[in-house]
Amino acid sequence: MDKRFQSSKERISAHKQTTSNHMEKATIIFQPSGSRGTISKGKTVLEAAQELGENIESLCGGKGTCGKCRILISEGNYPKYGIDSRQNNLSDWQKTEAKFINNKQRTEGFRLACCTSIKGDVLAFVPEESRAAKQVVSKRLRPVTVPYDPIIEKYHLIMKPPSANGSQGDLERLLDALGIQYGLNLGCDIDSLYPCDIEVLRDLPLRLREQNWHVTVSVWMDREIIRILPGKVLDSFGIAVDVGTTTVVASLVHLNSMQILDTQYIMNPQIKYGEDVISRINYLVHNKDGLAQMSADIIDALNRMIEALLSSTWPDYNNSPDTTEEFNYITVQKQRTKTEGKFLCLIPGDIEDVTIVGNTIMHHIFLKLDPRYLARAPFPPVVQKSLNIKARNLGLNICPSAYVHILPNEAGFVGADNVAVLTAEAPYKSDQIQLIIDIGTNGELVLGNKERLLSTSCATGPAFEGAEITFGMRAAPGAIERIAIDPETHEVVYKVVGHDAWSNYVKPGVLQVRGICGSGIMDVLAELYHSGIINKSGAFLQDQASSRFRINSDTKYKEFVIAWAKETAIGRDITITQKDVRQIQLAKAAIYTGCKLLMREWGTDRVDIIKIAGGFGLHVDPVKTLIMGMIPDCDPHQIISIGNAAGVGALVTLLNREKRSESDWVAQMVEYVDLASLQGFKDEFVNALHIPHKKDSFPHLRSILPPEILNQK
Amino acid sequence: MDKRFQSSKERISAHKQTTSNHMEKATIIFQPSGSRGTISKGKTVLEAAQELGENIESLCGGKGTCGKCRILISEGNYPKYGIDSRQNNLSDWQKTEAKFINNKQRTEGFRLACCTSIKGDVLAFVPEESRAAKQVVSKRLRPVTVPYDPIIEKYHLIMKPPSANGSQGDLERLLDALGIQYGLNLGCDIDSLYPCDIEVLRDLPLRLREQNWHVTVSVWMDREIIRILPGKVLDSFGIAVDVGTTTVVASLVHLNSMQILDTQYIMNPQIKYGEDVISRINYLVHNKDGLAQMSADIIDALNRMIEALLSSTWPDYNNSPDTTEEFNYITVQKQRTKTEGKFLCLIPGDIEDVTIVGNTIMHHIFLKLDPRYLARAPFPPVVQKSLNIKARNLGLNICPSAYVHILPNEAGFVGADNVAVLTAEAPYKSDQIQLIIDIGTNGELVLGNKERLLSTSCATGPAFEGAEITFGMRAAPGAIERIAIDPETHEVVYKVVGHDAWSNYVKPGVLQVRGICGSGIMDVLAELYHSGIINKSGAFLQDQASSRFRINSDTKYKEFVIAWAKETAIGRDITITQKDVRQIQLAKAAIYTGCKLLMREWGTDRVDIIKIAGGFGLHVDPVKTLIMGMIPDCDPHQIISIGNAAGVGALVTLLNREKRSESDWVAQMVEYVDLASLQGFKDEFVNALHIPHKKDSFPHLRSILPPEILNQK
Repeated sequence: MDKRFQSSKERISAHKQTTSNHMEKATIIFQPSGSRGTISKGKTVLEAAQELGENIESLCGGKGTCGKCRILISEGNYPKYGIDSRQNNLSDWQKTEAKFINNKQRTEGFRLACCTSIKGDVLAFVPEESRAAKQVVSKRLRPVTVPYDPIIEKYHLIMKPPSANGSQGDLERLLDALGIQYGLNLGCDIDSLYPCDIEVLRDLPLRLREQNWHVTVSVWMDREIIRILPGKVLDSFGIAVDVGTTTVVASLVHLNSMQILDTQYIMNPQIKYGEDVISRINYLVHNKDGLAQMSADIIDALNRMIEALLSSTWPDYNNSPDTTEEFNYITVQKQRTKTEGKFLCLIPGDIEDVTIVGNTIMHHIFLKLDPRYLARAPFPPVVQKSLNIKARNLGLNICPSAYVHILPNEAGFVGADNVAVLTAEAPYKSDQIQLIIDIGTNGELVLGNKERLLSTSCATGPAFEGAEITFGMRAAPGAIERIAIDPETHEVVYKVVGHDAWSNYVKPGVLQVRGICGSGIMDVLAELYHSGIINKSGAFLQDQASSRFRINSDTKYKEFVIAWAKETAIGRDITITQKDVRQIQLAKAAIYTGCKLLMREWGTDRVDIIKIAGGFGLHVDPVKTLIMGMIPDCDPHQIISIGNAAGVGALVTLLNREKRSESDWVAQMVEYVDLASLQGFKDEFVNALHIPHKKDSFPHLRSILPPEILNQK
Repeated sequence: MDKRFQSSKERISAHKQTTSNHMEKATIIFQPSGSRGTISKGKTVLEAAQELGENIESLCGGKGTCGKCRILISEGNYPKYGIDSRQNNLSDWQKTEAKFINNKQRTEGFRLACCTSIKGDVLAFVPEESRAAKQVVSKRLRPVTVPYDPIIEKYHLIMKPPSANGSQGDLERLLDALGIQYGLNLGCDIDSLYPCDIEVLRDLPLRLREQNWHVTVSVWMDREIIRILPGKVLDSFGIAVDVGTTTVVASLVHLNSMQILDTQYIMNPQIKYGEDVISRINYLVHNKDGLAQMSADIIDALNRMIEALLSSTWPDYNNSPDTTEEFNYITVQKQRTKTEGKFLCLIPGDIEDVTIVGNTIMHHIFLKLDPRYLARAPFPPVVQKSLNIKARNLGLNICPSAYVHILPNEAGFVGADNVAVLTAEAPYKSDQIQLIIDIGTNGELVLGNKERLLSTSCATGPAFEGAEITFGMRAAPGAIERIAIDPETHEVVYKVVGHDAWSNYVKPGVLQVRGICGSGIMDVLAELYHSGIINKSGAFLQDQASSRFRINSDTKYKEFVIAWAKETAIGRDITITQKDVRQIQLAKAAIYTGCKLLMREWGTDRVDIIKIAGGFGLHVDPVKTLIMGMIPDCDPHQIISIGNAAGVGALVTLLNREKRSESDWVAQMVEYVDLASLQGFKDEFVNALHIPHKKDSFPHLRSILPPEILNQK
């Protein structure tokens, strides 16, 4: 309302309202980034950060359990910023915070961003280690060989225009031409309900006539026409998507040549609701529109990825230079999606097929299916079957009539990602007994051969993803990803994400170390044990060769320094503590127990081959997984890393119709084993905490480990 | 922008813009309704009327061919209304107008609203005969007998909750229960893609648990779960819709008892784009969003009808009193949808099935399929097959997962409405040779028996709908619907829509006659001929018994007065002119020619039974159709009116699965005959203009017509 027409009473009332609105807000400034904004009072600093796009690390999703979101509150008047920052402007100190912030730090002004709500203006400093860095993603697809057996087929039709007695419908004329030219009889059966998508039908009359009855149609699964194109266009394109809890990978594929044109990686945007799946389920249980929000987040993210994939086919696309890139085990020439010297210049409508894989929770959230019952015994999924859903009904910005194929789930804990791994590796065709271990946020195991396949899921906890480890972090720049310890001197060398050289070949400080990521955490246990720093049960030995071993004066924990403060970006020693060792032991013991119990259920005491899959699968040293006692005994040459096999599964089911049937079949064929219900689970688990397992014999380890280590009590 | 912050320059510029915007508008006031509004200059008065909701009759859709939209422009300053109305404020006089407005009327200020665009303020008077009245709809459904064979079936399930080893998905558990309890195996086949709608799947986990695994599911065609309901709910409801060019009829049906609960009739809102289908095609050809607009109009209208149908099941519904209503030939007790003393209180989600019938143009517009090629030789439809489309993809406000079933088209001119008529009448099961004549805006004919069926469409033109007839109008209050002429005195009695008594039992003026509607037009030719007013060739005889026959002093046409000015609401004599007689002859000759040529193609010179269907079918006197020579000779007892058989077809395909298959089958089985391509069409047509046909013998007529009439040359 124009203020000139308000009475003075009305003006005052309006002013009061504005003022009181203003009273409900506070200014928050984050340093060193300088992000600044006005936030509703009562929100936590973490929520404020998320609102302002400030990246604060939070592995637990704001539950106060990871302690990663430490911030430093400045006290004082800052005329430069126009605010008066007071520690009193925040909610009271909480007991939870004391678990991660000692008294000295408390006095300095440290708080946990997730436990602290805003009462007034605040200037907050985000320390280096609390900053969530852009993740470096190491998920890569392996080359695969699949026969040409496409889901989408294109048919070039030269039709006769309607003649004098032209009572025939345009669609019927087109279907006739398909039958005559290609022997494809779509919807000849009266009962066939879907010969043509309604939107294609709406397009049909104009397209046929403007192209003089000379068109190409895309047919999905020999069932339905999903697109009509002018003249002769035989190239088809699809996208294979692996929705990981942490990382989402999408590959644009030329379906005819089965060539990958470009791959995009992003962090799953749902990370803001929590790192692990349980945090995310909690979020949606406690937030009314949580599921819709999270589902929209992943759909939006996929749409951005699709846009980026399409951009890579346009000549003005500069983000992806023409480089040679290591593509898992093989090296492929990145195509910039030129074909015969021409850029493809793809548009959303050109994407005619998408396959989606993911664990059950990611699967459910993507489809907006309530995943809450996956977190409650007996953990049933909403659906196991594979689904085909029209892109327009999901909001994916591709050809609206195209189907998005979502791979089936095996069981509540073993999702479409595992089905994808199986479809890629096809143990069901093998005589050898294969053990496939897929380590993501959960550990998923499959054991068997063409006779029988068993699967299970084991709760590794988030240790392998960096959570609950003192200096754990995601695989981002500055993260230690490989560790080697000299058995004599106990000196440490390491490799950092983003750098090719090991630390002993680099000047101190160059690597800007910030923490240890999953694959580094996988290395460290084997190295500590192998070099005699910890014993078989994971305890630090008294007799240590270096000053790296010490007792932390604050925490009183025993710890071992991996990187000295001067080598880091955070100005503190990066250590592995006794508590960290225990966490890693718990995680690896969960996997070992799963393997052993599956073997018992299957009825074998040996496996022929062990395949380790997962986002960090490429970095894992198979022999170290054997040393640390994460996997059962096996010929080291038969322990192989298979990288992101789930992504490969998404790819093969995009390319090959038989593989798509196989994935439906294998999801039903695999028998799910509930570990916790098995006899002897606890005993096995307790023994598996040892490095390696207390009672099992590891004949192959004898060739690797020195006898004094292996034979220690 | 707040004007206080504008510079004086900005203010002036803004003011100029406002002023110039104002200059582009004019005020128009319609009398006697008083509708008033500001209209962009350049629009026609007819467009202005449509914008302001003023009902001006326009049968041709604004093409200047029907002359129904005459208005009277007032000249002068009207301080009361604040306008200066000038005839100069309208665009120049056009030649088209002269066809309908004589010089005297022109001087008085008469114009055609569709030919006159607005240049300035105008006060327009809309004469009674130019006012489009609310139509009285006479389409009614006939009772039908179909076995119980439902499309939607409900299954009450008592499921076991997931047990300890609960790896099974909720959907799989439900499908298992369906199999065990009812032997229904949905989607057991891996290839079965649609066992459950995605939105039902989204609802599934919560519904199953809150109902303690005790639910009912609705299954469509033994294929797909489209709804989940709490506990045991076995009632299903559907709606059968007949989308006519003029009238839309929708019936709410209790599928279990096959009882019609309520029927709603409305005028097709697309009438604003033109009365006949060709006007509508022209509209969408010349208006960019025409198709989308027209499609949205009919969807909106259906949603309003659905709302009204649902309202009728609520206790506070007062629009439809508990009355006994004539329901075609039988009398049904209107149910107010109470069952066992309780109101059903239906909501949109309760409507789980809809069938739609309509001619090809209505079919296409409903589905947003471009119908323009239906108006161009060789007139192919976009699709012939029946379609099943999810309600949510069409925007129909029923159960969003339900399918809307659209019946198939036979050919470009013979649409789903004719398929519906055939499915209702099932001549394909009969030994008798049946001739089915469906007279809507077009005439559709089917001839045959279980051996062979031929169909055709004949261009009757809009005469039977009141267009191109001087005093023709829709079946609205004031329309003459029956006419009888005394052969001796040539005195006329008539019956008017909305009144039960014939005119000779009513005081003059009470009936407020305004024109003659279709069924009156069908009567008049037979009566004029039978009473010796016109001869066999349709010419007025010289020897007339009454002063009703005259030569119009203005038009110079011979005419016959049906109603004197004093009996009318328009203050003018309502006549049938020589030109009108010719129009009716053209229309009936088109049908007769179609019948004869179909009979020749089929190879028969007689038919056993003639069924006359159509919106006005109930009113038509079968014997008069024989007298006027619209139908071939037939035993008068075997000429029957079957009313709105298309609506009956929509109903039977809603109720019965076998009937739905039959409709698919019959659409393919009927052979379409293109009349114009047949030899002798012209000769037959010319002879058919006679009353009755010049060369054919009508043995049955001899018992009806006096020999002096029948034997006249």
